[in-house]
Amino acid sequence: MPLYKEIIDDIMHRIQMGQLKEGDMLPTEMELSILFGVSRPTVRTALLKLANEGYITRVKGKGTFITRPKLVQESTSFIESYNQEMREKGLSPKTEVLEFRATRANEIIAEKLKLNKGDKVIKLKRLRFVEPDFEENPVVLTTVHIPYKIAPNLLHYDLENTSLYDVLKQQNIVIQRVERELEIKMLYGKTARLLNAKENSPAHFISSVGYTRDGTPVEYSESFYPADRNKFLIKITR
Amino acid sequence: MPLYKEIIDDIMHRIQMGQLKEGDMLPTEMELSILFGVSRPTVRTALLKLANEGYITRVKGKGTFITRPKLVQESTSFIESYNQEMREKGLSPKTEVLEFRATRANEIIAEKLKLNKGDKVIKLKRLRFVEPDFEENPVVLTTVHIPYKIAPNLLHYDLENTSLYDVLKQQNIVIQRVERELEIKMLYGKTARLLNAKENSPAHFISSVGYTRDGTPVEYSESFYPADRNKFLIKITR
Repeated sequence: MPLYKEIIDDIMHRIQMGQLKEGDMLPTEMELSILFGVSRPTVRTALLKLANEGYITRVKGKGTFITRPKLVQESTSFIESYNQEMREKGLSPKTEVLEFRATRANEIIAEKLKLNKGDKVIKLKRLRFVEPDFEENPVVLTTVHIPYKIAPNLLHYDLENTSLYDVLKQQNIVIQRVERELEIKMLYGKTARLLNAKENSPAHFISSVGYTRDGTPVEYSESFYPADRNKFLIKITR
Repeated sequence: MPLYKEIIDDIMHRIQMGQLKEGDMLPTEMELSILFGVSRPTVRTALLKLANEGYITRVKGKGTFITRPKLVQESTSFIESYNQEMREKGLSPKTEVLEFRATRANEIIAEKLKLNKGDKVIKLKRLRFVEPDFEENPVVLTTVHIPYKIAPNLLHYDLENTSLYDVLKQQNIVIQRVERELEIKMLYGKTARLLNAKENSPAHFISSVGYTRDGTPVEYSESFYPADRNKFLIKITR
């Protein structure tokens, strides 16, 4: 086993044992090289690899800190339910419904769903968690609006334990095409509190419109994915 | 014409005329409603639409400011050169080559390109601009590494005016599959200065590996897209 791997194994073991926790500072390169009795380039290689996998983060002028690897999201490239994606990764998704009710479309929602302002829509706001890694810190906060007229029965379903896409499919609504916009927004106020994220910390903001085969928009969603908990994987083949 | 459209047209006209510039603060909703002689809900609708299109940004507790709409990038979902994408949008791309030389692969680059640490690679670091909207503020800073052995002639090309993908194709290297990871990183130091971005401001960070048909990795790139200048559009069909 190369020397740098021994350092990685040692640090990973301490993380798994809980001896090193998120936010803990690691000794300096110099200190680690003395501690492990190896050269500084060897220490550097180990730290580079750990940083690359997200287990540590080096903050210039401050030090090296233990971090939690970001959850890899592939949902940007597929039309797939959150539950489905997480289960395929062997993770246990958990959902908390914050709001689920009929309301009226504002200008933006009306435009996205090709409705008139004031038309009836169903609003569904959910926090998504993943066990065991993200039990306290939600992975994403998603608010989706659906035209009331296309699925008036929707409100009777339990959307804490069932996927919205599955429920829509039961109503013969199949989402065929999705258009997503991905930006960065800073979290503040209620959104930051709900996500248990720092005020003014960055998040991926994804707004998405789902269309049926005939081009009717049937869902408009806005999602906040805190930057320190998420990264997106996109695979493209020509 | 609905009243809110008149407000939008007026503000857009002032932006085009240069009377309203990036960073300028708009009057309050109340002031605008008096100025235009319309109700506050009408003003709110106009501002909501302008914000939605990126022409203004509302900062809680501070006010509403003129902003520049973000450049829409579709490159995340396609294998396409930057120049090609910008030209298709009717924009003039401009490139500045910062570094273009042979160097040695570090651990990360070696791992991504399936090389050994210390193997010869070509490093190409470029700033990308777009005219006329982003002449001073670069859209993206990209550093790409290519195994030296696959394209030793590469260094003789002018990569300020030619696409890297085109040059590789001339060497019979066609990128067939790309894997991208999208995260958020904060800009600081040299990277922030090169991008003419504020220290500690957020950016989309995309790391990408391009493979040929037989699965050989032939390029590894890292790109910083400042958050205030870019958004990504992703279209998916089932």
